Amino acid sequence: MQKEEVEMGGGGGEAQMEIVGKAFVKHYYGLFDAGSRPALAGLYHPSTSILSFEGRRFDGADSIGRHLSELPFDLCRHMVATVDCQGSPFAAGGILVFVTGSLQLSGEEHSLSFSQMFQLVQTTEGRFYVQNDIFRLNYG
Amino acid sequence: MQKEEVEMGGGGGEAQMEIVGKAFVKHYYGLFDAGSRPALAGLYHPSTSILSFEGRRFDGADSIGRHLSELPFDLCRHMVATVDCQGSPFAAGGILVFVTGSLQLSGEEHSLSFSQMFQLVQTTEGRFYVQNDIFRLNYG
Repeated sequence: MQKEEVEMGGGGGEAQMEIVGKAFVKHYYGLFDAGSRPALAGLYHPSTSILSFEGRRFDGADSIGRHLSELPFDLCRHMVATVDCQGSPFAAGGILVFVTGSLQLSGEEHSLSFSQMFQLVQTTEGRFYVQNDIFRLNYG
Repeated sequence: MQKEEVEMGGGGGEAQMEIVGKAFVKHYYGLFDAGSRPALAGLYHPSTSILSFEGRRFDGADSIGRHLSELPFDLCRHMVATVDCQGSPFAAGGILVFVTGSLQLSGEEHSLSFSQMFQLVQTTEGRFYVQNDIFRLNYG
């Protein structure tokens, strides 16, 4: 596992899951919006993680990190409206995190509505990585 | 497990997952929009399933089915825009299904944008049930 993982004690109870999920969301979009997109790669598993981004699929931390780094804009700002967390009972300390909100790209007048889900999985050392990530802009 | 489960052979490969996920989505919103919301309960596990619906949490098929049945409208129509599927490697034959689209309630002029995620898990008999379900309307 790489260096950008979320360092939080995990497991046990809905309240704890909610804390971990919301801390993750803050950390993730914090890196994203600070122009530190290359660092996002460290939140994914080197081989097993999957990102579906607007219907395109990327496997493994390197490929995912490269895609996020190369998105065709410099800066953006995620405005998170809702975060829902549920336990994913079959994964070790697994948490499903579901986010809705809007996204403001630098230089664009209008914001874009988005939704995104993550499955966080815990390592044996108690850290979390992103096993699954699905991102979509919402139209209509 | 109850009678409304999706009966499909499962496991093995992305293409198969995509087929199961999309068949599930069609079946789920088909029941929902046909005014058969009470039957949706049969798609959930009696005890372990979780629904987060606009931030309210419901546990187990009975509670989930009751909530869906009692939503304060008669008919609605889901117009699915995108369906993304990913394997959830820690659950037996697990599939994460992420849906975006819009929702037309009877008697309402405007449609509502929504996003929803499901985690489908396979029983030992090879059928799928909904372990996790998170639904949100998208504003903004």
